This record gives sequence, C-alpha cells and structure tokens, in this order.
Amino acid sequence: MSDPLVISVDAMGGDHGPSVILPGVAQASAMLGANVRFLLHGDAEQLAAAIRQTPGLLSISEIRPSLGVIPMDAKPAHAMRRGKGTSMWNAVESVKAGEAGAAVSAGNTGALMAISRLALRMIDDLDRPALVANWPTLAGVTSVLDVGANIVCDAQRLVEFAIMGTAYHRAAHKVAQPTVGLLNVGTEHEKGHEEVREADRLLRRLMGDINYHGFVEGDDIAKGAVDVVITDGFTGNVALKTAEGLARFFRAELRATLTANLVAKLGAFVASGALRQMSERLNPSTINGGPFLGLNGVVVKSHGGADARGVANAIRLAANLGGSDIIAEVTRTLARRTPPSVAPLKERTIA
Amino acid sequence: MSDPLVISVDAMGGDHGPSVILPGVAQASAMLGANVRFLLHGDAEQLAAAIRQTPGLLSISEIRPSLGVIPMDAKPAHAMRRGKGTSMWNAVESVKAGEAGAAVSAGNTGALMAISRLALRMIDDLDRPALVANWPTLAGVTSVLDVGANIVCDAQRLVEFAIMGTAYHRAAHKVAQPTVGLLNVGTEHEKGHEEVREADRLLRRLMGDINYHGFVEGDDIAKGAVDVVITDGFTGNVALKTAEGLARFFRAELRATLTANLVAKLGAFVASGALRQMSERLNPSTINGGPFLGLNGVVVKSHGGADARGVANAIRLAANLGGSDIIAEVTRTLARRTPPSVAPLKERTIA
Repeated sequence: MSDPLVISVDAMGGDHGPSVILPGVAQASAMLGANVRFLLHGDAEQLAAAIRQTPGLLSISEIRPSLGVIPMDAKPAHAMRRGKGTSMWNAVESVKAGEAGAAVSAGNTGALMAISRLALRMIDDLDRPALVANWPTLAGVTSVLDVGANIVCDAQRLVEFAIMGTAYHRAAHKVAQPTVGLLNVGTEHEKGHEEVREADRLLRRLMGDINYHGFVEGDDIAKGAVDVVITDGFTGNVALKTAEGLARFFRAELRATLTANLVAKLGAFVASGALRQMSERLNPSTINGGPFLGLNGVVVKSHGGADARGVANAIRLAANLGGSDIIAEVTRTLARRTPPSVAPLKERTIA
Repeated sequence: MSDPLVISVDAMGGDHGPSVILPGVAQASAMLGANVRFLLHGDAEQLAAAIRQTPGLLSISEIRPSLGVIPMDAKPAHAMRRGKGTSMWNAVESVKAGEAGAAVSAGNTGALMAISRLALRMIDDLDRPALVANWPTLAGVTSVLDVGANIVCDAQRLVEFAIMGTAYHRAAHKVAQPTVGLLNVGTEHEKGHEEVREADRLLRRLMGDINYHGFVEGDDIAKGAVDVVITDGFTGNVALKTAEGLARFFRAELRATLTANLVAKLGAFVASGALRQMSERLNPSTINGGPFLGLNGVVVKSHGGADARGVANAIRLAANLGGSDIIAEVTRTLARRTPPSVAPLKERTIA
C-alpha cells in the first residue's frame, strides 16, 4: 500500500458523471486531509475542464485519461469483454497495479463486480464478492451482508460473511470487536433451515475470531442489536429493499400529514429545523458506499444517483478500508475456520 | 355455513384475556351488524361477569364454558396433547362442528396452528397453513404470504401461496381480481434461485386463475405495486420483522425530533392532530388479524397484545372470510394447477 494513501476514482461513473464525482472528491479531500491523494480516471478534456471548476483538486489529484464509459445498463459479461480501457476498468486496474489502495465507482454494479473479480481475483477459495449495506439504526450503524450478490448460500458461505463482516465493520466503523448476528426467523437453536442451523454451529467454534452473538430477527437490524448481521444474498436483498420501500412510504406519509391542512403546515413550519435534521440523519447518502468484500483489493460502489456528499462518503469509506489491513485479516481468519464438514450446497440435497 | 354468520371466539386468549376480547367483540358487532353472532369460549364465571360490563353483548353472544387456557409460551406439541377442552381448542372445534363459520384467537400462535391443523385438517395435499401479513401501503393494503410458517418452500408451495393469497385478498379486502407478485431480487426472468424461477414458469400457466404480475422486489411491497406478494416463509418473516423494526425506529426518530427543543415541541403541538391521524393510519391494529390459510375452515390469529379495536378488526376479518367461499375457491383452483414437474424439494438437489 502506498503512503500517502491513494484512492482511484472512476470519475465518469454514475448518473451525473464528473459534475458530481469531482465535487465529491473535493469534499472527501476536505474530510480526509492532505495525506490522501486521488487518481481520476476518465475523459481527459472533460476532467481537465471540471478540475478548473473545483478549486483545490489540482494539487491532490492526477488525471488518468481513459476511453469510453461502461453504460449503466450493460451486461456484466459484455463489460468484461469490451470494457478494457474504460474509466471503470482503469480505476480497478490501478488497485491491481498497486498504485492505489482502493477504487471507487458510481457506475454499473454488475460490471464493476465482474471487472473487480477478473482484475483482483477473490481471496483464497471465496466464490463471489459479498455486498454490504451500512444500515442506520437506533445505536448507530449496522453492517448487513450479503445484500444481493450470493443468492444461494450454504453454511460455509455464511461463516465467510461473518469473517468478512467483522473485518469490514472494524475497518469501516472503528469498532474493535464487532458483534455478529445470524439472521433467522427466531432465536432458538432449532429455528430456521438447515443452512442457518449449521452456520450457527460453525460460528460457535470460531468464537476467538468472531464475536458471535447468535441468531437475530429482522427487527433486530433497526434496533442495532448487533454490529454485523449476516444472511444469504436473497434474504438480505429483500430485507434491504423492503426497508428502503418502507422509508419512502414513511416519508410520503409524513409529508402528506404535514401538508394536510393549514394548522399542520404551520406546525411543520415551526418544527422544520428539527424535521430537516431528522431527514438528514436518515438520508442514505450519509452512509453511501457499498464495498465488495472478498476481493484481493478494496473496491467501493457508490450509488449511481448519489450527490457530491454521497460520493464523498463513499470515498471516505474506501479510505478507511484502503488504510486498514482488512484483506490480510480476512485471509488469516479464513485459514483458521473449521474446514467444511459437509459437501458444498451445489452437490448436496437439502433437508 | 350458518346463517346468520357465527364467529367462534377464544375469549381467554392474548395478553389481556376477556377484559380486552369482550370489548373487542362488542366493537366488532357494532361494525358487522346484528346478522353476526358470537360463541364466547372461556371460563363461565369470568365471562358472565365480563358480559355484564359490556352492554349489548348478551343478546348477540352465547357463553360456551371451557376449562383452562393454553399458556402463551406452551410448545405446540404440548398444546395438542393437553389442550383439549381449553378455550382455544373449543373455539376451533366449533368451526369443525359446523356451528361457526370462523374462529378467532389471540392466544399462542404455534398452539393455535397445531390445534387448527389437527381439528380442521389441511385442504387437499397442502402441508402447513400459510401465515398472511396485511401490509399497509401507499395504495392501501397488500397481502404478504408466507410470513413464517413454511421455512423451506419449493416452486409448488409458492404456487399454492399464489392460489391461497388470491382467494384470501378477494375475500378479505374485496378486490375482484387481485394482482399477484413473486418476491425476488430483481424483475428479469433469470434473476433469483431455482425455486422462484420455476414458480414463475408455473404461475404463467395459471394465468386464467391467478392475475400474475411477475417478479416484484422488496420496495414494491410498500408501494402497493401488487395486491398479493408471495414468498417463502423465511424471507417473508425476515421482511415483515425488518419492516416492523424500521417502523419503530422511524417513530422513535420522529418522537426524538419533535421533542428535541422548545421550538420543535411547539411545532409538534400545533401539528399534533395531523400527526395523530398518521400514527393511526400506520397503527398495525387497524389491520390486525393474521389468518391461517389452507385449512378446511377459517381461523384468524389476533395479536396477543392487540387492544379492543385490534380484536374487533381481527373479528371483522374473520367475518369477511367466514362469509366468503374462500375454501371452496382454493380447493377448486388447486385442482386446476399444473401437476409438479419436478420432485419435491426434499428429494432433490438444488443448483
């Protein structure tokens, strides 16, 4: 890893491209200080013009010209075959080459994952990167994984998520010994399907490495009952999107309520400062940035629609991870886990 | 089915027993009119005393003395062996005997399910009852099933949920042709695991009987994108509890926001009428009542902690179902579905 820390940025990605990414880099730089520098991958002319609009960027960043952008709707296989030399591809290549400690892109998620796997390879015998959601809770933030990359998961995969989630939460959110909960439909040992019961048994044997709390239920996420919640990518994706949908529903109800009549409007006006603070606290952008865990390198996906502050937060997350020894830690703990006691899910009948 | 409609009520169930159940019956009666009558199962003396406190109940209900109550923490197997003659047992028996068109209990969920299966038996070749959540949405209410009874589901089971959910939503929420969505991690055909992809294929062949919309994602629930959302009991349970946790989180944030300082408090006071209306609309009790689908009889579970209004809503739901031909409809449609093209999940390797 380089010193100062270098972050490689796909400056063309996302819904808005450089017009939002570059101000995001500038905001991130203000948060991170002068010891973090940036490689900006993208169209040379566009970036040179944009940098002139963003004071201060010139001295801490370097433009890396690239050709073309991977479309937001491109298929991952297509991106792998045809994406070479694009801003996203080169952003990841900089990590592979050891020039940067982390890469950030707001581009196409599937393409970014495919290119990252190809360029950086998975740690050890891991299969696909795990996606993490940084979930706002009553207690702060909980890391939930996997939220969509690994649709069918056996017990070993869930244990891998616990190992990666622990290292991630420690690096990203500065908690020394994060507690880990395994998502289930109840907290008693006999609850759930065979995969979660087997994972529960395996995790109890990893107690020295994982601060394992046992099963948790859906409502424990928002409570912040544990620091890390692990689950298969199908369940995690549904839980995350269900929560996003409910948050939108709640905001719509609140808006309708506070504009229903003149008296409500007056009350909302008087309370507007407090309501704005709340909306700020619940804004997903405050914790924008979804890392791909399990790669031999740090790659963070920023929401395609994130604003400059969201981009800055994704970059700060990448800096936290890039400046940590998360990959060495995951590699070490993976080596210590109990070897699979059952055949992988693919080859096995489930009860 | 009897005319007038008779609802069999476990008057001892729930956290509060007759002190809440009987006022709930009275409120339900006010909503449903004189053509619905009640069998009240429970301790004869307690109920006689409680009825004297609840004017109007005497003329529309009949006390059915029973001995004992199944504890809220009893194991289902224990309830089946030892529960005979309790208020819950007898409430279900009245449906079996044809004396009542539906049963309602706020008691132990597992016990109620076990006793209902034993007494009423499942329709056709169905395995376990499906649990439905009535989910408040921007569009009204969406029926989500299964939310916890069937943890591992193959494609056939998901199709059965679509059939039961359609008949349920029609009877409970008076929608003639409810749309059905299958919960997945994306809407394209290739998304998800083998069970949802196979269920998607089977549902397209049932188009005459099921108004099938295709895959939906988690955020489509709160949008009210479809009337009925079907999923396995593991995912459904996690989604429901995650949403319940988030709703509590949101209420706590709102409360903290509106009491943060004097100005916010003043605003909240001015807007309090509108905020109360919102809280009312989002109160789970407005749509309390979880039916067990797939039995040869209507059984509705009321929340153990529900207030009288919640109990009344569960009874109203039971009356809607008891007065419909939901069981005949489910039986008919089950007979028309495509026979299983693959072996049941238990005997098969998943990809």
